[in-house]
Amino acid sequence: MPTDRERAVFEAAIKLGALYHQFVGTPVSPETAASIEKAIESAVSLQPYVTKVKVELDRSVMLENPFGYSEVSGRMFAVTISTRVGDATCTAALRYENGYPMMSIID
Amino acid sequence: MPTDRERAVFEAAIKLGALYHQFVGTPVSPETAASIEKAIESAVSLQPYVTKVKVELDRSVMLENPFGYSEVSGRMFAVTISTRVGDATCTAALRYENGYPMMSIID
Amino acid sequence: MPTDRERAVFEAAIKLGALYHQFVGTPVSPETAASIEKAIESAVSLQPYVTKVKVELDRSVMLENPFGYSEVSGRMFAVTISTRVGDATCTAALRYENGYPMMSIID
Amino acid sequence: MPTDRERAVFEAAIKLGALYHQFVGTPVSPETAASIEKAIESAVSLQPYVTKVKVELDRSVMLENPFGYSEVSGRMFAVTISTRVGDATCTAALRYENGYPMMSIID
Repeated sequence: MPTDRERAVFEAAIKLGALYHQFVGTPVSPETAASIEKAIESAVSLQPYVTKVKVELDRSVMLENPFGYSEVSGRMFAVTISTRVGDATCTAALRYENGYPMMSIID
Repeated sequence: MPTDRERAVFEAAIKLGALYHQFVGTPVSPETAASIEKAIESAVSLQPYVTKVKVELDRSVMLENPFGYSEVSGRMFAVTISTRVGDATCTAALRYENGYPMMSIID
Repeated sequence: MPTDRERAVFEAAIKLGALYHQFVGTPVSPETAASIEKAIESAVSLQPYVTKVKVELDRSVMLENPFGYSEVSGRMFAVTISTRVGDATCTAALRYENGYPMMSIID
Repeated sequence: MPTDRERAVFEAAIKLGALYHQFVGTPVSPETAASIEKAIESAVSLQPYVTKVKVELDRSVMLENPFGYSEVSGRMFAVTISTRVGDATCTAALRYENGYPMMSIID
């Protein structure tokens, strides 16, 4: 049987993997980024065991294509998610590091 | 060479196919549906040749799973998109009909 | 009422928009690209009014991230789709041009 | 610092969340299911720390829409993933249970 801590870790990671692959490719610009952030946060908040979620999309890497917008990509994400299972908790993050959207346990 | 009308039709359809497959599977509930609708509209608005977009997600078919939420699915969508290329326009829609998320030219 | 030609154009465009947003973000490498191409072709082939589909993912732009793989992105796609509605047909393509995954009617 | 076991759990969960949200909505039929399964397995295999992955899509719930196909949905998935970080391992699964695509640690 997994421990509550292992389950809290497991649940946090599901959400990071899920949100990344759900939203990558979504058209976005600095003007619309807030609505995409809010939608992602609202989606993650519904999922089981989530106690907190913060999503920030880096406007500075929203380079314009010829039609004046960008697409959500790994390099834009700064996400922190907290989960609780029983008395155990986990905080995990998604950050762009060394050319990779790195997901890691931070607490 | 395609006509402007054909291109307006083409551009409207791209957006319908795109939004459906981008957002299907997103966790949603009646409480968060408005933020998902807004995100979809903001994403579509950025795309080329779009002059108008309206997205409504049917709350009445957001059946709760054991964790109390639902996922965006074909049966929820009511979308209308208008495009303009040159002097030509097209309005197209996505509606759930006969068990299928039907996309069609309505003008 | 739309003409058969307009409907053939409409149907081709739906499939291009759909496949792009369905598969962008999928982990891929030159070794696995053929299975992703085949999956995309099999998915598009099922959709209504499609008579032909060819998907090629450009291996030369599958740059390795620190873990040795890449993700399906707009710059990889070369897709051609043909549709038929009544006696009318349409062939449309997705190509990466000028930094943009351009979709266009080619016949 | 997380333990190797926690990291193995974390990595397995990322892949489950990712594949679900990447592939949900993909057109599929019993005839094409094998190519979708293969594509998902090839995508997961590339991701870090994965040692084994098995994806099965339940053909018996691929109900035909009016155009004769279905879409990948939560009720179709039977997935098992194994990861290794250092000397620690984790096996996790995705199964449809009680109307929900349940992800859990099984070893």
